Amino acid sequence: MSENPKIRFGIIGCANIARKVARAINLAPNSTLYVIASRSMEKAHKFAAHNGLSETVKIYGSYDQVLDDPCVDAVYMPLPTTLHLHWAVLSAHKKKHLLLEKPVALDVAQLDHILEACESNGVQFITGTMWLHHPRTAKLKDLISDSKLFGPINYIHSSSTGPGTKEFLENNIRVKPDLDALGALGDLGWYCIEAALWAKDNQLPTTVTALPDVTKNSAGVILSFTASIQWEPLDHTVATIHCSFLSNTSMDLSISASNGTMRCNDYIIPYAENSALFEFTSGAKFAELHIGWSVSPEEVRVISQLPQEALMVQELSRLAEGIREFGYRPDRKWPDISRNTQLVLDAVKKSIDLGCKPVSL
Amino acid sequence: MSENPKIRFGIIGCANIARKVARAINLAPNSTLYVIASRSMEKAHKFAAHNGLSETVKIYGSYDQVLDDPCVDAVYMPLPTTLHLHWAVLSAHKKKHLLLEKPVALDVAQLDHILEACESNGVQFITGTMWLHHPRTAKLKDLISDSKLFGPINYIHSSSTGPGTKEFLENNIRVKPDLDALGALGDLGWYCIEAALWAKDNQLPTTVTALPDVTKNSAGVILSFTASIQWEPLDHTVATIHCSFLSNTSMDLSISASNGTMRCNDYIIPYAENSALFEFTSGAKFAELHIGWSVSPEEVRVISQLPQEALMVQELSRLAEGIREFGYRPDRKWPDISRNTQLVLDAVKKSIDLGCKPVSL
Repeated sequence: MSENPKIRFGIIGCANIARKVARAINLAPNSTLYVIASRSMEKAHKFAAHNGLSETVKIYGSYDQVLDDPCVDAVYMPLPTTLHLHWAVLSAHKKKHLLLEKPVALDVAQLDHILEACESNGVQFITGTMWLHHPRTAKLKDLISDSKLFGPINYIHSSSTGPGTKEFLENNIRVKPDLDALGALGDLGWYCIEAALWAKDNQLPTTVTALPDVTKNSAGVILSFTASIQWEPLDHTVATIHCSFLSNTSMDLSISASNGTMRCNDYIIPYAENSALFEFTSGAKFAELHIGWSVSPEEVRVISQLPQEALMVQELSRLAEGIREFGYRPDRKWPDISRNTQLVLDAVKKSIDLGCKPVSL
Repeated sequence: MSENPKIRFGIIGCANIARKVARAINLAPNSTLYVIASRSMEKAHKFAAHNGLSETVKIYGSYDQVLDDPCVDAVYMPLPTTLHLHWAVLSAHKKKHLLLEKPVALDVAQLDHILEACESNGVQFITGTMWLHHPRTAKLKDLISDSKLFGPINYIHSSSTGPGTKEFLENNIRVKPDLDALGALGDLGWYCIEAALWAKDNQLPTTVTALPDVTKNSAGVILSFTASIQWEPLDHTVATIHCSFLSNTSMDLSISASNGTMRCNDYIIPYAENSALFEFTSGAKFAELHIGWSVSPEEVRVISQLPQEALMVQELSRLAEGIREFGYRPDRKWPDISRNTQLVLDAVKKSIDLGCKPVSL
């Protein structure tokens, strides 16, 4: 064969986000959508029809069928977080590579079970965080790693908010304690924490402190919170994050360093699919008399040939191919990023539970 | 007389910022620069020559001469903060309206002495914060006050950093305990606190908490800090501010509300003098499949006929004219804004001194 066969994906659960990822699987050149499954055939058929899936895509009425199908190489799992432990571990035991929607687990103990199952079964784990795979993110990383243009990072700020609608606050799984019990912390906080860790090359902070503006719904699910994340004292870096289901949609990341400043206001989902930008300043100076700036921010635009979610799928398939073709071990990079994100997320939760006391990691 | 005579300004102290304000006084249509003074004639002459001041501008070698000159209507005072109490109170007793550079005082007790002296002598007090006078600020206020487009404010974030140079950290008066003892809290924190109060219509918060990333120099002056500001629990608004002398210059303000988001990255000194913008989103939505946004931020550009510092001077002169021509009492608006800013600033200082404990206001 002139080309390796594509990695065949099964989708377990027909959540809204699965529509986007189904498209992404078919866009990724090394991947193909092989099967979709819901708990009922009816729902699965509806999903297939609604999304114009090819007739070659199989449709199953149970998750087990997907995991038992030897033709499935990888599983995309957009289930409510409460169900992840069971299905992700089972999926690993069935030797399926795993693209797990975030938040990946209710706590790090659960995640460790999942990661251990993937590791011991030799399958690749990757979290469904798309923005980490956008070429803009790589370009950003290059710039903020430049010791002359940017220098040591002093401050990171990220906020992720939305959508604040009544319908969402009443009915979405993200505000239900039996489905996505971590609420805004899991759904939005995941991104902000991941972004802060990304900026710090996945280095764990030492202290996390929630601020006292936590809002919960009547079922006790977090709807809004703010937290500070601090690295070791000599490092001096601090991050603040703000996440809320009560505000207009926003997703801001800004990083302030001794010589440079970076801002990106659509880092989780770019405004447009094929091109995205960020703002970068290095060595900002005021004009004579301080009546303006002599160095104002530069807009850096990055073209993306494939949508970020297709690049994410492509990355999992690339690693899966390495395992299949060359007998590689699963790559630790993505599990490590997710585990650190979960550790910090757990610490924010603990700080909230303790009435905003600082929590050490 | 067909026109009222212009308000005649004396400048006390030839700090760098005085160059910008000297120009602004002459640009403001109701104001004129009458005299400049330094502690030495030589320094004052140098300042006049260096800034191409008209030969009609008087030059004094002592501050007292300015205050004793009956032709001086108003004083601009860019002295180190430590000297404000003495000279501002004396200036009020000499019946001069006062444009006082920020930070206005070392604490609210000092500021109250100054404000009381201005009030009892019937002279106007205004702080030298220029951005509050930019027409962009008024436009912003209109938009964030729109209950449909914007809605209740949930979160405010402001950072003010710069310039991080070795020269500044060694020699600037802002890092000297005997000159500007409040360091980055006074110089940069003043803006961020004022911006948060501005967004909340000058409503005082209830709790202020410094975060544990405070950096001080060897003399104990604050070089960098982060803090959270919280309004009463039912209000739900929280602000985070970050100020640092250790980072590249930046001045960001973002406000997140139920229906809208606002961002402005040059709110203290606009990138350009005659035109400034901010970014505004209302009812942000994702496109179908969440592969982009269907409502992306709008850039709102505001033209300024006069620089913001000239508008600030014009405002003081307008109020001074009202007092002179119509016997008005001094306006309470500007003193109230400054007093609340100082109260919050004092609370941040106290929280830092208490090892980042929450401080009630």
